[in-house]
Amino acid sequence: MHDPLTFSDWAGERRQRIESVLGRVLPGDDSAAPRLAQAMRYATLGGGKRVRPLLAYAASEINGADIDRVDACAAAVELVHAYSLVHDDLPCMDDDALRRGRPTCHIAFDVATALLAGDALQSLAFTVLAGVEDGGACALLADAAGHRGMAGGQQLDLDATGQTLDVEALTRMHSLKTGALIRAAVQLGARCGTALAAADAEALDRYANAAGLAFQVADDILDVAGSAATLGKTAGKDAVQRKATFVTLLGVTEAERHLRVLHDRAVAALAPFGSTGQRLRDIVDWIVLRSS
Amino acid sequence: MHDPLTFSDWAGERRQRIESVLGRVLPGDDSAAPRLAQAMRYATLGGGKRVRPLLAYAASEINGADIDRVDACAAAVELVHAYSLVHDDLPCMDDDALRRGRPTCHIAFDVATALLAGDALQSLAFTVLAGVEDGGACALLADAAGHRGMAGGQQLDLDATGQTLDVEALTRMHSLKTGALIRAAVQLGARCGTALAAADAEALDRYANAAGLAFQVADDILDVAGSAATLGKTAGKDAVQRKATFVTLLGVTEAERHLRVLHDRAVAALAPFGSTGQRLRDIVDWIVLRSS
Repeated sequence: MHDPLTFSDWAGERRQRIESVLGRVLPGDDSAAPRLAQAMRYATLGGGKRVRPLLAYAASEINGADIDRVDACAAAVELVHAYSLVHDDLPCMDDDALRRGRPTCHIAFDVATALLAGDALQSLAFTVLAGVEDGGACALLADAAGHRGMAGGQQLDLDATGQTLDVEALTRMHSLKTGALIRAAVQLGARCGTALAAADAEALDRYANAAGLAFQVADDILDVAGSAATLGKTAGKDAVQRKATFVTLLGVTEAERHLRVLHDRAVAALAPFGSTGQRLRDIVDWIVLRSS
Repeated sequence: MHDPLTFSDWAGERRQRIESVLGRVLPGDDSAAPRLAQAMRYATLGGGKRVRPLLAYAASEINGADIDRVDACAAAVELVHAYSLVHDDLPCMDDDALRRGRPTCHIAFDVATALLAGDALQSLAFTVLAGVEDGGACALLADAAGHRGMAGGQQLDLDATGQTLDVEALTRMHSLKTGALIRAAVQLGARCGTALAAADAEALDRYANAAGLAFQVADDILDVAGSAATLGKTAGKDAVQRKATFVTLLGVTEAERHLRVLHDRAVAALAPFGSTGQRLRDIVDWIVLRSS
């Protein structure tokens, strides 16, 4: 099955698709709490690279899933991601005023509304997912979002304030903070098609692990090399906050080498999937290209 | 089937049971993020009336559910409740220092950790529920927690700051803020047994609506009449914050009359269930008695 679209066209089409799905599942002005609905829409719509939905759509292609079924999974992981950004930007966390080139949610609204919008976005992710998928899918997403996943990683990040993590600890932190949800996006997408053999599921998870970490290393490289325009947030912020990054620990050259290793690992993991893994391959290529 | 236990003994037994279930599902010190695990346990264990778990257990008795199956539902609603209290107490919300007679989570830990603990408690609720129940149960809980339920009600409460709601608007706000989760507790409990006829499910929902509102009216009466010891939080706080309550809008005497009407409505709704509805009856009796 040959998909004639370039990756850029494919990603553009899928981004439009997820934007429309998110617009449909998010509450509108007829909501019981219109200000909350506005904050939820503001935080979710109109921007973002949509890496996680792209991963869900791409993963669903390896075993021939119906794309309509993938929408809920793609939307659910993006809603969890959007909630995490809103809470991450709050004054008690990163205290960020700019996100995706716009005022953060608590600046555009207020801190209490942003807190509730994040909370309600997490709930909405499960409403959307449970409306289509079974308890297993919900358990998978909940686990990725919670103390064993994203929230746990955020706590490790918080605990590291004023300390210098080594590469191993930094990797562990990111494998929870951003890696868990990226792995969930891939797993949920793949779950929409025919069941994978155990070895294939493991290979897919190796891909997701490597791609997720590559994404973080690329982000760290961009943070020192990029401009606010490329990054959509304040550049050099990690250095100002004196947070350990792959660049501060390894230097740019070694971080770039590490990124290539992760890229190779992700690509190698896709071997069993042949041409059906092409979009997953495209995504990890694009992740690496972003930072160069 | 005659249950020989007094309500007080039954409730004590169920409270011990849910405490043990919660202790088991909450992460321990071997967690990837031990400080987060500690904050989650602190916010959830060792206190609280456990009204929602009691409602789930009681509702499950009307159609003969196996109690082991109810544990996950009871724990999930209590985890959502615990998360909402942690976030409600944050400085950007009610800014409360005391809860259940102890320092609130953000005082005992810090604001960022409390934020993450609340977030992770919400995720854990879905991990626990989805581990046993299907997507339908997850959708039910997510809806009750989100913008159409608890979070929506909290936003309406926030929006009302500095305004005076009338009784109708106050009722609408509470039917979301506390009512939605109480209804979910009852529905999830009942879902554990044999399926209810539509008319019975409606009667049960009428009970949950009335009981949830009665709980709020009783709380408002306690807030002016009670001591911090009875209430477990700072008494008279609503008056200081100049929030509309059923007592400020109606006066104590009329609020007490309203409470009796809600009690009668809840009791009447239980008629179809005969003796299997006894524990639900006991709970609404106890809710009303608390405030007298």
